[in-house]
Amino acid sequence: QGKLKGRKARWAVKPSDMSNNTFNPIRAIVDNMKVTPNPSKAAIALSIGDPTVFGNLPTDPEVTQAMKDALDSGKYNGYAPSIGYLASREEIASYYHCPEAPLEAKDVILTSGCSQAIELCLAVLANPGQNILIPRPGFSLYRTLAESMGIEVKLYDLLPEKSWEIDLKQLESLIDEKTACLIINNPSNPCGSVFSKQHLQKILAVAARQCVPILADEIYGDMVFSDCKYEPLATLSTKVPILSCGGLAKRWLVPGWRLGWILIHDRKDIFGNEIRDGLVKLSQRILGPCTIVQGALKSILHRTPQEFYDKTLSFLKSNADLCYGALAAIPGLRPVCPSGAMYLMVGIEMEHFPEFENDVEFTERLFAEQSVHCLPATCFEYPNFFRVVITVPEVMMLEACSRIQEFCERHYQAEGSQEECDK
Amino acid sequence: QGKLKGRKARWAVKPSDMSNNTFNPIRAIVDNMKVTPNPSKAAIALSIGDPTVFGNLPTDPEVTQAMKDALDSGKYNGYAPSIGYLASREEIASYYHCPEAPLEAKDVILTSGCSQAIELCLAVLANPGQNILIPRPGFSLYRTLAESMGIEVKLYDLLPEKSWEIDLKQLESLIDEKTACLIINNPSNPCGSVFSKQHLQKILAVAARQCVPILADEIYGDMVFSDCKYEPLATLSTKVPILSCGGLAKRWLVPGWRLGWILIHDRKDIFGNEIRDGLVKLSQRILGPCTIVQGALKSILHRTPQEFYDKTLSFLKSNADLCYGALAAIPGLRPVCPSGAMYLMVGIEMEHFPEFENDVEFTERLFAEQSVHCLPATCFEYPNFFRVVITVPEVMMLEACSRIQEFCERHYQAEGSQEECDK
Ligand SMILES: Cc1ncc(COP(=O)(O)O)c(C=O)c1O
Ligand SMILES: Cc1ncc(COP(=O)(O)O)c(C=O)c1O
Repeated sequence: QGKLKGRKARWAVKPSDMSNNTFNPIRAIVDNMKVTPNPSKAAIALSIGDPTVFGNLPTDPEVTQAMKDALDSGKYNGYAPSIGYLASREEIASYYHCPEAPLEAKDVILTSGCSQAIELCLAVLANPGQNILIPRPGFSLYRTLAESMGIEVKLYDLLPEKSWEIDLKQLESLIDEKTACLIINNPSNPCGSVFSKQHLQKILAVAARQCVPILADEIYGDMVFSDCKYEPLATLSTKVPILSCGGLAKRWLVPGWRLGWILIHDRKDIFGNEIRDGLVKLSQRILGPCTIVQGALKSILHRTPQEFYDKTLSFLKSNADLCYGALAAIPGLRPVCPSGAMYLMVGIEMEHFPEFENDVEFTERLFAEQSVHCLPATCFEYPNFFRVVITVPEVMMLEACSRIQEFCERHYQAEGSQEECDK
Repeated sequence: QGKLKGRKARWAVKPSDMSNNTFNPIRAIVDNMKVTPNPSKAAIALSIGDPTVFGNLPTDPEVTQAMKDALDSGKYNGYAPSIGYLASREEIASYYHCPEAPLEAKDVILTSGCSQAIELCLAVLANPGQNILIPRPGFSLYRTLAESMGIEVKLYDLLPEKSWEIDLKQLESLIDEKTACLIINNPSNPCGSVFSKQHLQKILAVAARQCVPILADEIYGDMVFSDCKYEPLATLSTKVPILSCGGLAKRWLVPGWRLGWILIHDRKDIFGNEIRDGLVKLSQRILGPCTIVQGALKSILHRTPQEFYDKTLSFLKSNADLCYGALAAIPGLRPVCPSGAMYLMVGIEMEHFPEFENDVEFTERLFAEQSVHCLPATCFEYPNFFRVVITVPEVMMLEACSRIQEFCERHYQAEGSQEECDK
């Protein structure tokens, strides 16, 4: 129908439902916090999940050199296939190949960061009206992406008292006919936890029993401390179809470069060509990641010295120990010891801090008084905790811990004291 | 509802409607063509819209150097804001700023290629069930993106006899209450046409009258031959809100680097904060383009010598003239002279080639006999034409034209001869 003749058209440009439904809880919470640091104390940000911000964790020179070589070759300026150069996909396939979870180039799709890897996986697996299961606490992007696409999220719990293992009973009970996939994030942001082989096997048993595919967010894959072993989920199952998402961001310390990937593990051919083709078609919408980074992949994977990875991890482990030790000694706080990734979650015994309503107010006041910025775990849908990023330089970590101690000592109220006041 | 107890779950993983609806017509047509070149003639691809494939159009050394400097600085490895670094957005704003269409950093959103720029614009402007108007012939991505999001497309015609100007009457008649935006692509892929100021003003008048915003795909902006002037659409209207999409791909000859942008022109505040915020929120889904390219932007914009742009354009112009001249002399072909971009459309007088059903069969046979590969314009929803890419080296261009001539001479049937056969 054309417009009615004579009726004057009027401007009315409204954002789409999709953009209205694209909602980043971290932004919403953080932007609403009254963030004025104490002017007499230099601010320390333990809130930023970017390991590069303090300059203490530069990428390896070989990684930078690989990019320059790719530039100099002049071979990587044109369009690559939308899923990435064949040679680059071969490199990723052979790097992550293992007998228990074989990979070929056809099983690899390169993406613009792990974020786009997750986006494509959700977009191919779920229709509006279906649901996905995501961890609580968990990375906020899962909800943001799902809801923008009209996919419902259901939260399964991670249990702090069990080193953030999944409440498997609950997980299984949440699955219904409309469940399109489970998202399993291991190692975890925000917990820094790493699942044991046994626990992963139990997760896979649930997926196998319920016939639900898994989206494994393994962006922190291999980033586990030396006393612990990282098991790629796909190595533990021949049955469950798994899309494993990863990227260069964390392990190679170049999150801005936006190179991610999807590894398709489907030995029983359950995804089949349909899901593979779907991913390829979806990749054609924006045509893959920067070709220079793709061209550098081979050298990045093969030339980065082992010491680089070791150094990063021993730094993270030492900072984690330091932070855990310091915070565990503070009455009213209950840090959970991490085993990998770049984070640590700290429980707040709210009953001992009666001045504060919740974790948002706690971290707000911590910033106002001590200029230490931590994300309240409400950002990860897990109230009464806060998240500490352990990539900051050691001196900052120490100073931050001592300020947190000062803050807690000042506001801590021993058991019963609040009740007495109330009488 | 959980699954019924006792009922064995079964695997049934199906691709989503979105991925099923993501459809690249070029792929569908090209993949179905019987593409076996003549083994005795080396293949010449006039089909690939990638100016870098033949090595004759390298980017400028300053562009590569800018990337190396960005790498060496070590400042661009971390996450940028999802819409891009402020400094990089400032550079784009000041580069494209002009008094008639002022721009500030807040009006710029950096994206993963012009493709993602278009995707974000459509995603923010249109809901499923709405429609957009796109050119015929036109770049296939518009339909691909729109249909994947459940947005209907309506085609408005470009008129070859008027140098591919828009059929404005028809354009206006197609607009209805559900029209979310018009896509205007200038300079044009596949036509190589460049709209005059007068024509652009008429397009704007339609948009103003009907109160429909414009998505201006200006990825070939400034790529016009010296006898012609490129007018950015936004410089010609203060009323119509315009999202102009562009990028480094074409003018700087680095399509693989995936740096694009959206310029928000909205002097009457019709988009308002809502559309701006919507774009920002949508950008958070995958977090912007590669930071190294962002870091290199300033130098790329300021250090690339004028001669680089001039050289590219004079090469394109000379190849265009050469190709146009050669094909115009071939009975049965009607090339349309281009004024910019990298393409040229050629009409096929199908009545003189009775052996071939349509442009797909014509180009198929051209490849089989002469090993010259051109895209049938059915790929651009415009049958009985084919598209020639004019970025190939001059010798190839000449050789291709002479083979096309040989092909046409062989298959051309003078007027009436077919009818006589039929009798
Ligand atoms: C658990 C998790 N998954 C995915 C991502 C996104 O990674 P990328 O920066 O490669 O998009 C992050 C980033 O912080 C993350 O913590
Ligand atoms: C008209 C048009 N718009 C957009 C694009 C996409 O550009 P990019 O490679 O920056 O995504 C192209 C690429 O060929 C194009 O021809």
